[in-house]
Amino acid sequence: MIYVATTNEHKVHEIMDILSDFNVELLKSPKKVDVEEDGKSFFENSVKKAYYYGMELNNPVICDDSGLVINALGGMPGVESARFMEGYSYEEKMKELLRRLQNFDDKSASFVCVATYFNPNSGVLISAQGIVNGTISDNIRGKFGFGYDPFFIPEGYDKTFGELGESVKRQISHRSGAFRKLFELLKKVGEI
Amino acid sequence: MIYVATTNEHKVHEIMDILSDFNVELLKSPKKVDVEEDGKSFFENSVKKAYYYGMELNNPVICDDSGLVINALGGMPGVESARFMEGYSYEEKMKELLRRLQNFDDKSASFVCVATYFNPNSGVLISAQGIVNGTISDNIRGKFGFGYDPFFIPEGYDKTFGELGESVKRQISHRSGAFRKLFELLKKVGEI
Repeated sequence: MIYVATTNEHKVHEIMDILSDFNVELLKSPKKVDVEEDGKSFFENSVKKAYYYGMELNNPVICDDSGLVINALGGMPGVESARFMEGYSYEEKMKELLRRLQNFDDKSASFVCVATYFNPNSGVLISAQGIVNGTISDNIRGKFGFGYDPFFIPEGYDKTFGELGESVKRQISHRSGAFRKLFELLKKVGEI
Repeated sequence: MIYVATTNEHKVHEIMDILSDFNVELLKSPKKVDVEEDGKSFFENSVKKAYYYGMELNNPVICDDSGLVINALGGMPGVESARFMEGYSYEEKMKELLRRLQNFDDKSASFVCVATYFNPNSGVLISAQGIVNGTISDNIRGKFGFGYDPFFIPEGYDKTFGELGESVKRQISHRSGAFRKLFELLKKVGEI
């Protein structure tokens, strides 16, 4: 059994859905562990969360750190994706980012996810990165997904993640890529 | 080819020696990358170093974060092992720790190492922990090794790492345990 170290219900369900092919029991963490996500990279924050949850729960855990990287804005909101304009809704955050982007021709962006597994008993930690490249849409569209999904158009599509819905997202998303890669690695090393 | 991300010559040679059975070319990093080792765990610091060296060198890297954990002193010097009493020699650091330990019956301690591999191209990061339990000697003995080796007696021995010499250390040390475990994992996942 592996705990999913997050208190974000959307994430927990998305992760369980992504990993449903793997024959592993996943449970939501029974408690919140305070971890200061002050790293400057997705790798640092993802590893910190996995480490402190694993040590506290004394059980293997998985978690991720994810975010949107907008190239014209110097990588913003990046590792600050969740904390950018804290207290505001994602609709307001997206409107503000669209406002800042309006004078740039370059609308390219990436969704990045670093998924991490930590087993405090074996002392093994593994991280895998998933990236989806795409562009920021001119407007906010679609009701599926969460966070910045409604204004991100993945490469090869003309709809936002908010319009494409869960089944497409499960196949091509950054989180899907990272967790599937991670679980393939875990199978190879015998941790699952 | 994998870079060893450290500027500590002792460590580079020890790591190359430990991994000489594996058929992998290891080279010392061609430059120093400034990484603030401000994490509160060996995992955090080891991952940070691997990540920033890997991104800067654009090549797979290995590194470690190691330290001495003295139980009676609340885990001191721990992640601060290298920075504890900065500017002083290890002989002076050991003398100070012996002074602080003199009123405790519990002389138990562990050497801990977290070895990390990061490949910026595949986005895969793997860490493995090695631990050697032992006791702090009443005095500083032996001329082999480096750092805190001359006052640490590993379990099952009556000599310090400073007296036991490189061949024993290569077999049983925390660094040896961590790097061998790491390279076994890397073989299994096909990164080496």
